[in-house]
Amino acid sequence: MTEIKAPSPETLQRFIEIVGADHAITDETEMASYMHEWRDRFHGKAALVLKPATVDEVSKILALANETGTAIVPQGGNTGLVGGQIPSDAGDEVLLNLSRLNHIRDIDLAGNCMTVEAGLVLAKAQEVALNAGRLFPLRIASEGSCQIGGVLSTNAGGTAVLAYGNARDLVLGLEVVLADGRVWDGLKSLRKDNSGYDLKHLFMGAEGTLGIITAAVIRLFPIPAETATAMVGFNSLQDAAAFFDRAYGFGSTELTAFEILPRIGIEFVTRHFEGTKDPLDSAHPWYALIEFSSANADAGLSSGVEALLSEALEAGEIADATIAHSIDQARALWRLREEMSEAQKYEGGSIKHDVSVPVADIPEFITRADQLIQLMVSGARPVPFGHYGDGNIHYNVSQPPGQDKAIFLSHWEAVNAAVHEIVLDLNGSISAEHGIGQAKRDMLPHVKSEVELELMRSLKQTLDPKGILNPGKVV
Amino acid sequence: MTEIKAPSPETLQRFIEIVGADHAITDETEMASYMHEWRDRFHGKAALVLKPATVDEVSKILALANETGTAIVPQGGNTGLVGGQIPSDAGDEVLLNLSRLNHIRDIDLAGNCMTVEAGLVLAKAQEVALNAGRLFPLRIASEGSCQIGGVLSTNAGGTAVLAYGNARDLVLGLEVVLADGRVWDGLKSLRKDNSGYDLKHLFMGAEGTLGIITAAVIRLFPIPAETATAMVGFNSLQDAAAFFDRAYGFGSTELTAFEILPRIGIEFVTRHFEGTKDPLDSAHPWYALIEFSSANADAGLSSGVEALLSEALEAGEIADATIAHSIDQARALWRLREEMSEAQKYEGGSIKHDVSVPVADIPEFITRADQLIQLMVSGARPVPFGHYGDGNIHYNVSQPPGQDKAIFLSHWEAVNAAVHEIVLDLNGSISAEHGIGQAKRDMLPHVKSEVELELMRSLKQTLDPKGILNPGKVV
Repeated sequence: MTEIKAPSPETLQRFIEIVGADHAITDETEMASYMHEWRDRFHGKAALVLKPATVDEVSKILALANETGTAIVPQGGNTGLVGGQIPSDAGDEVLLNLSRLNHIRDIDLAGNCMTVEAGLVLAKAQEVALNAGRLFPLRIASEGSCQIGGVLSTNAGGTAVLAYGNARDLVLGLEVVLADGRVWDGLKSLRKDNSGYDLKHLFMGAEGTLGIITAAVIRLFPIPAETATAMVGFNSLQDAAAFFDRAYGFGSTELTAFEILPRIGIEFVTRHFEGTKDPLDSAHPWYALIEFSSANADAGLSSGVEALLSEALEAGEIADATIAHSIDQARALWRLREEMSEAQKYEGGSIKHDVSVPVADIPEFITRADQLIQLMVSGARPVPFGHYGDGNIHYNVSQPPGQDKAIFLSHWEAVNAAVHEIVLDLNGSISAEHGIGQAKRDMLPHVKSEVELELMRSLKQTLDPKGILNPGKVV
Repeated sequence: MTEIKAPSPETLQRFIEIVGADHAITDETEMASYMHEWRDRFHGKAALVLKPATVDEVSKILALANETGTAIVPQGGNTGLVGGQIPSDAGDEVLLNLSRLNHIRDIDLAGNCMTVEAGLVLAKAQEVALNAGRLFPLRIASEGSCQIGGVLSTNAGGTAVLAYGNARDLVLGLEVVLADGRVWDGLKSLRKDNSGYDLKHLFMGAEGTLGIITAAVIRLFPIPAETATAMVGFNSLQDAAAFFDRAYGFGSTELTAFEILPRIGIEFVTRHFEGTKDPLDSAHPWYALIEFSSANADAGLSSGVEALLSEALEAGEIADATIAHSIDQARALWRLREEMSEAQKYEGGSIKHDVSVPVADIPEFITRADQLIQLMVSGARPVPFGHYGDGNIHYNVSQPPGQDKAIFLSHWEAVNAAVHEIVLDLNGSISAEHGIGQAKRDMLPHVKSEVELELMRSLKQTLDPKGILNPGKVV
């Protein structure tokens, strides 16, 4: 279906005129920072970088791209981990950076929502909400630089999914520029609207391959009046599973985080980050960072959580636990979780997976994957951690100490393929929250049914018949 | 695009052979109950009623329908209010009733989900969940007869949307038979899966026009350990708005219902239903039935709600309130809400609307609509009630006392059109939870942009190129 061709100098000039020369980058050196992501796992070239400031400009850019068969690669904060925002090596694509489209159009306190543009940085959206007395609950590691458009286009997850859902669950309405430049104004701020097909979910998670999200109505929540944060130690993953059931049954909607951490991860963080320390008196094979929140200050959350932990201790589900008694203590516990990915860098190469399995199958998944790793790369050190309550485990594997990093990383694809087989056997997903991008596109025929792939291809063909939107990504 | 034709006797015979003669109805008298809904506002004829028991049979039926250009009208519990499940008058469509496809395939307690087939009655799903120690939170008036397939195909709402979301928010995975008989197995039980386009949201709310939902993985929640139910009286809608903000800020996720009721509605119910009585000592222009739930028995929910009401009373937001002190008292309060629709039948004709507006605009919407009604049908009695917290008001209008019912009901379309203008002016929806069906299909070109209609039509064309799926509904 692709009718893509390299843009002529005349076409490039027409693109530049849409945004003005000050907001178009043609110099290769100036373009460099847009052409790769921070890990430099994905890098490419572009014919041009465009930075439109209005929806009208985005519309004109896509209309011209559609007319001329020019490939468009949308990019937000450039924090994606699967290369969805990085152009190919060919140098004939136009990179559409949405950073300047970053206004807050409206805040509706009674409706508990606000209308924001795609280029708004997530942390800024959180801050604006807080200043208005509301919470925008999405929390991800890249929140300081990722942008709303990218967050929604990849349906970002993070540490608050358990209570508030994924990014798509936080959206009431969207504005999208279609492949031919038409603008779909779906910026409704309604909780309930059954007047036709739900179009917004089609564009969210589609990584810019079906349309370009330019604005969204996002949901706001009351700021929790009380939060209880604790670190719990377990003797086994089975114990962690039993305790998760207990904690979920205790709090359900109040349970805002349940992050699992392995002993080796705690060791990595405390070894490499000053000011961090072992959270419990003795070492345990597994830990969970748990957080409960309540909008009701009189709900006795802290004493409730203390009672919960005592019961779990008596039942033998948990080996030890500590509750944060100040915001600083809570931050110190969170830091052990937040530095876990970074800490692995100091231990050499790391082969990563972003997978999910049914929650009940997490212990089996990790046990089987650990055995597999030892058979494939003897001495390699699995550091599986992440969002237990969502079934989403970042199954990362650090290299054997002392081994050559490049040699270890050469196993990446084989290890991925083998771990993914276990995931598929457990009816899980090979991409829980990061998306497909270019990193996992070739895996799709193996993990999706032919019917599902045909459905995806037919949607792509319908919404982007010339294939100009982010070619080579997802489908 | 429609290539529909009446099925030949040979084609009908081939359909019958798929399900067996015992599960096909050809006799017009036996068919009668499937051909109209309980209010008899929508009625039609069919060439045949088929009651398949397996996904394989549904698949074969659609493959044959696609081959022969036979129109298929899917039907669940036949409780829809917009005629989506009722065939046309032509008598050349095949009605596909899914009642026999009603098994529970799996319950996953650790994963807090269960896999159920389309024909399962909603109340049965609720009951099975309760018996397993979990809550399936969807609550709608028709729960005793509506079925999961219809609930998801219409993205049903109800009284628990505020805390748990609409039907689509309660689904992790779907199984769908496509127009040509292919089966899409999307029965994942994952909270997080970003491996490609989200297909399930396309089929939910599409009223069987894009595919036939045959099974779903639905989410389960902890059963609330404590529930607090109260009836509150207000002097004005503005006060109700202020109190809603307070209650939402107090409880957010614990606030499981906030249903607004007008004085006239309370009078209708207490007049016509034995055993009901005025909930408060004196009469108030507006009431709200509120419910808070907590999974945590020690959260002090009752005392918290008492304190909330005291503060609101002091602030002058509420005029009076009563808290239920037993399950029976709570049921009595709920009955005032639940009989509100039925009670209007005893007061003559009623012109109904199922609309939503941004929450902040509810007072303005009701005020403007009331003025409009008096201008159009002097003496008519508006009974606006419903899901305040979702912005979803059932703006029903009872006839002037003593007027001829038929004459009053002849105003239906003109009143609808005028009320919808106010809704659109407030950026609301003309169908908040009931859908489009055949009732509101002709209104779509007026309420949707041409871009949105074109997107809907192109999705229909892509997924059902021959137009055999529920023709004449939605698009």
